[in-house]
Amino acid sequence: MTDTLFATLFQELENFVLIDPHSHINPHSAASKNLADLLGYHYYTELAHSAGLPKDQIEGPEITPKEKVGRLVEKLADLDNTIQVSWLIEMCREFFGFQEDRLTPENWEPLYDNAEQKMAQPDWEDQVLRHSKIEQVFLTNDFDDPLEGFDTNRYIPCLRTDDLVFHFVKKGVRERLAKATGIEAVDAVTLRSAISKLFAHFTAKGARACAISLPPTFHPAKVDPGAASQVIKHAVKGQRLTNSEQELLSAHIFWILAEHCAEHSLPFDLMIGVNRRVYESGVYQGQDLYDTRVSLIQYKEVFNAFPQVTFPVSVLTHMSNQELVSYSWIFPNVVANGHWWYSNTPTYIELDTRSRLEAIPRNKLIGYYSDMYKLEFALPKFRMYRRILARVLAEDFVRRRGWTEDQALQLGRQVLRGNVEQIFKMPSSK
Amino acid sequence: MTDTLFATLFQELENFVLIDPHSHINPHSAASKNLADLLGYHYYTELAHSAGLPKDQIEGPEITPKEKVGRLVEKLADLDNTIQVSWLIEMCREFFGFQEDRLTPENWEPLYDNAEQKMAQPDWEDQVLRHSKIEQVFLTNDFDDPLEGFDTNRYIPCLRTDDLVFHFVKKGVRERLAKATGIEAVDAVTLRSAISKLFAHFTAKGARACAISLPPTFHPAKVDPGAASQVIKHAVKGQRLTNSEQELLSAHIFWILAEHCAEHSLPFDLMIGVNRRVYESGVYQGQDLYDTRVSLIQYKEVFNAFPQVTFPVSVLTHMSNQELVSYSWIFPNVVANGHWWYSNTPTYIELDTRSRLEAIPRNKLIGYYSDMYKLEFALPKFRMYRRILARVLAEDFVRRRGWTEDQALQLGRQVLRGNVEQIFKMPSSK
Amino acid sequence: MTDTLFATLFQELENFVLIDPHSHINPHSAASKNLADLLGYHYYTELAHSAGLPKDQIEGPEITPKEKVGRLVEKLADLDNTIQVSWLIEMCREFFGFQEDRLTPENWEPLYDNAEQKMAQPDWEDQVLRHSKIEQVFLTNDFDDPLEGFDTNRYIPCLRTDDLVFHFVKKGVRERLAKATGIEAVDAVTLRSAISKLFAHFTAKGARACAISLPPTFHPAKVDPGAASQVIKHAVKGQRLTNSEQELLSAHIFWILAEHCAEHSLPFDLMIGVNRRVYESGVYQGQDLYDTRVSLIQYKEVFNAFPQVTFPVSVLTHMSNQELVSYSWIFPNVVANGHWWYSNTPTYIELDTRSRLEAIPRNKLIGYYSDMYKLEFALPKFRMYRRILARVLAEDFVRRRGWTEDQALQLGRQVLRGNVEQIFKMPSSK
Repeated sequence: MTDTLFATLFQELENFVLIDPHSHINPHSAASKNLADLLGYHYYTELAHSAGLPKDQIEGPEITPKEKVGRLVEKLADLDNTIQVSWLIEMCREFFGFQEDRLTPENWEPLYDNAEQKMAQPDWEDQVLRHSKIEQVFLTNDFDDPLEGFDTNRYIPCLRTDDLVFHFVKKGVRERLAKATGIEAVDAVTLRSAISKLFAHFTAKGARACAISLPPTFHPAKVDPGAASQVIKHAVKGQRLTNSEQELLSAHIFWILAEHCAEHSLPFDLMIGVNRRVYESGVYQGQDLYDTRVSLIQYKEVFNAFPQVTFPVSVLTHMSNQELVSYSWIFPNVVANGHWWYSNTPTYIELDTRSRLEAIPRNKLIGYYSDMYKLEFALPKFRMYRRILARVLAEDFVRRRGWTEDQALQLGRQVLRGNVEQIFKMPSSK
Repeated sequence: MTDTLFATLFQELENFVLIDPHSHINPHSAASKNLADLLGYHYYTELAHSAGLPKDQIEGPEITPKEKVGRLVEKLADLDNTIQVSWLIEMCREFFGFQEDRLTPENWEPLYDNAEQKMAQPDWEDQVLRHSKIEQVFLTNDFDDPLEGFDTNRYIPCLRTDDLVFHFVKKGVRERLAKATGIEAVDAVTLRSAISKLFAHFTAKGARACAISLPPTFHPAKVDPGAASQVIKHAVKGQRLTNSEQELLSAHIFWILAEHCAEHSLPFDLMIGVNRRVYESGVYQGQDLYDTRVSLIQYKEVFNAFPQVTFPVSVLTHMSNQELVSYSWIFPNVVANGHWWYSNTPTYIELDTRSRLEAIPRNKLIGYYSDMYKLEFALPKFRMYRRILARVLAEDFVRRRGWTEDQALQLGRQVLRGNVEQIFKMPSSK
Repeated sequence: MTDTLFATLFQELENFVLIDPHSHINPHSAASKNLADLLGYHYYTELAHSAGLPKDQIEGPEITPKEKVGRLVEKLADLDNTIQVSWLIEMCREFFGFQEDRLTPENWEPLYDNAEQKMAQPDWEDQVLRHSKIEQVFLTNDFDDPLEGFDTNRYIPCLRTDDLVFHFVKKGVRERLAKATGIEAVDAVTLRSAISKLFAHFTAKGARACAISLPPTFHPAKVDPGAASQVIKHAVKGQRLTNSEQELLSAHIFWILAEHCAEHSLPFDLMIGVNRRVYESGVYQGQDLYDTRVSLIQYKEVFNAFPQVTFPVSVLTHMSNQELVSYSWIFPNVVANGHWWYSNTPTYIELDTRSRLEAIPRNKLIGYYSDMYKLEFALPKFRMYRRILARVLAEDFVRRRGWTEDQALQLGRQVLRGNVEQIFKMPSSK
C-alpha cells in the first residue's frame, strides 16, 4: 500500500519556500524560549482542560514554565490521538532530536532542558524559519501597534480591527485610538479621520492586509451616517448601547474599514463565524465556539458594494465551506482563504481542499496559513497541509483526471505560494 | 494502483443508454453551432469573470462568437483546475478529435473551425445523442410554450412554473398566461382555470413532469382561497404587494400546481434552495447563490397533503443532502433527484451518492440529470457521474458488502435509467 | 486490493466484549421470538412503506407475525441496497445459518420456521449476547418503570425523561407520575419532590444515566420558579398552555433533571434534534424527521451551569457533528456519544468518526451504541461500527500517522468499551 505518487508529490511540495499569510506572531519574540511556549498554545491547554485538567493547575502567575509543562505532560496521554498533539511531537522530533513517539512524565524533562538550550541560541529564530521553509510571516497587529523595532519585510504588518468594530464602546479602546492617531473620535467625521490615520500608518509600514474576525450574527450594511454619528455620540458619552445601536455602530465602522481598504488597495481578510466567551470558565483563548447557522448571504451587500476590494474569506466550520466555494466561484472579489481553527483538522481540510480545487478558479485559492503564536508551529501545520494537498493532487488530479505530476505541482505551488504573492501584492514577489 | 473492478464497472455503466430527466435544451436548436455555444455556458462565463475577465469582454451584441471564444480561452489557464473545464476538454476530444489536454490561445482556432464544420453536418444532433448514449431528454418549458415543431418523444415536455409562482405580479407574465390559455386570471377561480388549461395542454403534448426552482425562504402552505383571491385582485390591479401578500400568493399558486399534479398524475420536480440575483453585476445566469439555512421541514405540509404526487427533490447544497436522504427514506412520495448546480462537482456527488445508496430504497433514487443547455454536455456530465457511481459501487457494494459485479450493475442501471422510466411513467418504458 | 492491516485490526476489534450504552431493549423480553420481531423494527417497516408498501398491509392486530414477514419480504428487493437490510441478512446468516445473500419470497419460509425454533430455545437470550460479544446493555426506561423482575446488572436502568419534559401537560403523564411517586405534582415544589423520588428509585436500582431526546427548537434555560409554578398550576388545571408557557415548563423540568443528575452524579444523555410526527401517516415509529438548523449554542447555558454533570451528547445529523466535535473539545463536561438514527449509516459514521478521533480527547468519545429494540441487532450494528473504526484506525492512525497496531487497538478499545465504563462509572468496571 505504499503510494509512490503521493510520496513524490509530497516531497516536492515540501521543498517550496512559503509566505505565511496569517499568524499571531509577536515579531519582538517570534520564536519560543522553552517548551512552555509550545505547550502553552491554547490548543493544548484547552484540550487538557477538556480532558479533565483543572484550569488553576496551568493558569496563574506563580506557575513556572517548567511546572506548567510537567502538568500538561501528565495529561497528554488523554490527548495523543489529536492532530494537535501530533504537531507537538513533530516539532520535538524535528527541532530537538526527540526520538520517542509520545511525550510522557518519564521522558519530558531531558527534552525540556535540551529544547531550552537550543532555543537560547542567538540565531534560533532564523534556524526555525529556514528549517520550516518559511520566508515571510503575516502578523495580526493591534490597531495602535507602532510597528517599530522589527523587520517589516520578514514580518508583514496586518491591521486587525476587531476592537474597533466590536469594542469601540469601551473607553480603553477609544483612548488607544486617540493616542495612536491624535484624534478624538467623537462623531462619524472624527472617527473616519482617526481610521484614515491608522490606514496611513499601517500602509506606510508595509501592511498588506486589513483583517477581522466576525460573529455568526454579524450582518454588514451601509448605515446612514447621521444615525451612526448619533450612536457614536452615545458611546462616547459612556451610555450603554442597545443591541440594535451596537449592531448599527459595528456595521458602520466595518463599512468605513472596507472603504479604506478600497482606497489603499488592501485586501480585507474576513474570518467569519466565531462566538466569543461561550465557555466562560475555559482556559485563556479556549472559551470561544460557534453556531453553524451562518451564511455568506449576510455579506451580499458588502461584496457587491466593494468590487475593487479583495476579500480573502475564512470560515470557521466545514458546514460553511460549500458556501465559500460557491461565493468564490461567483464573486470576483471573494477568495477562499485557508482552514481556520475548528476546521483545521485533516478530515475537514481534505474535504474542503478537494471541493475548492475542483470548483474555484485556481488564482483565487489561498491554500493555508499557520495562525500560529510561535514560529515553531509553521513546520508541523504547513506539513499537515502539504501532506493533504499532495494526497488530493495525486488522487483527484493525477489519477482521476490524468494530469502530469508537473501540472499537479504547478497547481500546488500556486495554491501554497503564488496566490499569496499575487493576492496580497507582495512587493518582494518573484 | 490500477483498479480493475472500478474499470470494469465503469465500462459497463458507460454502455447503458439513458434518459436525461432534466435539461434546458431548446428542442428547436438542441445541439451547438460553434464553440461559442459551448463556452457560452454560464459555468465558463461566470468562472472566467470570477477569475478576472470583465463582463463587457464577453457580453454584448457586437461580440462575434469567435471573438467571444478567443477571449474566454485567454482566461482558461486560470480555470483549468475546475471540473467544468474538464468537461470542455472532454467534449473537444470526444467530438472533435482534439488531442491536447489544455485549450490555449495557441491551439483554439483550428479547433474552432473544425468544430464549426462538424456541427454544420445535418445529422449533428443525432450524432451527439448517439455518441452520448442518450435517448430522450426532458425539457424545461415556459408555461406558454406551444410545444410544437419538435419530436416530443425525443424531447419530453416539462412544465416549468417559476414565473407563475413568483412573478404573477408582473404584467408580462399575466399577459402571457392570458394569451396561452384564453383566460384572464383575475381572481382565484379564473387563475385556477387558466392553470388547468396549461396542464391540459402540456399533458396532451406528453409532458412527464411539472417543475419549479424555489428560494430557501419558500414555505408552501394551503392558503385560504378568499385571502388568495384578494391578493390576486391587488396584483391584477398593478398594486405593489407586501412581502406577506407575495408569500401568500406564491404559496397559493404552488398549491394549485400540486393539486393539478395530483389530478394529472404528474411528478412535481422541486429544486430547492436558490437565491436569485445575489451578485447583480454578474454575467448572464451567473448571479445566483444561496443560503444554506434551509430545511425540508418547510415542505412538511405539502408532502403530507399530496401523498399521491411524487416529488423528485433536488437540493442546491451538500448541506441539504442528508435531509433529502432522510425525507426520501420516510416519505413514500419524496424521491432524491440528481446533483444540482453548486453540488454538481465530484466531491459532493460522491458523498451524496454514497449516503443515498445506503439509506434510500433503490426505487426512489434518480441518479443524475444533465441540466444542460446544449446537447454536447450530456456526455461529459453523465460520464463524470458514471465514473463516481462506478467507484461507489466498487468500493461500498462489491468490496465492502460482498455484492457481485452483476448485482452492483443492476443497481447502477436502476439508478441511471430504470427509475427515470418508472417515476416519470415513461410511455416508451421497456 | 486486500488490506491486511484493516483485516487484522477488524479481527481484533471484533474480539472485544462490549457494554452497549443505549438501547430500547425490553428486559422482560429481550430477544426475538420470531422473524417478525426482527422485520418489525421500524427501519424495515418505514423503508418498506417508503418504497410503496401500504401501511395497512403491515400494521393491524389481525396480521399474524408470519403474514407480516411475508408481506415485508415481498418488498425487500426494493430495499436490499440499504445498510439496514444488510444488518438483517447478517443476523439471518450469523444466528440461523442462512446461506443466501437475499431474503426473497422464495426462500423466507424455511428461514422463518428455523429461526422460530432456535429462538424458542430457553437460553436463546444468553446465546445471542455471547455470540454478539455484549456483556451489559443500557435500557431506556419510562420514568414510572418499577425496574423489577430482571437482572439490573445485565440490563442497566436508564431514566428516560421525554414524557416529563414535553408531556407533563397530559393528564395521563401526571397520573403516572403520581402513581410512581405517591406525590401529586401541583406546583414547582411538589414537582421537584416527585422528580427527586424518581431519581432515588432509579439510582437505587443501579441506573447509570438519565436520558432525553430533544427537538431542534429546544433551548434549555434556568427559569424563574414562581413563573414555573404558575404554569404548572395551569397545566394541572387542564388549561391549554400557550407555546411560550409550554417552552417555559419544558425548560424548567429539564433544569430540575440536570440538578438531580448533579446531585446523583448521573450522566445526562442528550439526544438532540428530532422533530416528532412530521409524517403523520407514517408507520409506527416511522414518522419523525428533523430540521438541520439546530446548534449546540442552544445548550450553552446548561453546559456552563452544570460543570459537574457529564453530558454524553448525540446529534441526529452529520451537519451537527462538527459542533459536537468542537463542543466536546472545549467543554470538559460534553462527551461525543455514538451515531444516532439518521446518521447511523456508514458514510456519516466514517466521517464523524474520523473527525472525532482527531480532535476530541480520547477519554471523551463513546464510539457506539446499538439503539436496538431486540438483542439480535447488537451484532450487525456493532460490527458495522467495528468495521468502520478498523478502517479509520488503519488509514488515519497506522498508515498516515505511523502508530503501531497495538497503539491503534488500545485507542479502539477505549472508544468501544473503556470510556463506557469510565463515563457511566460502571460498578463492574474492570
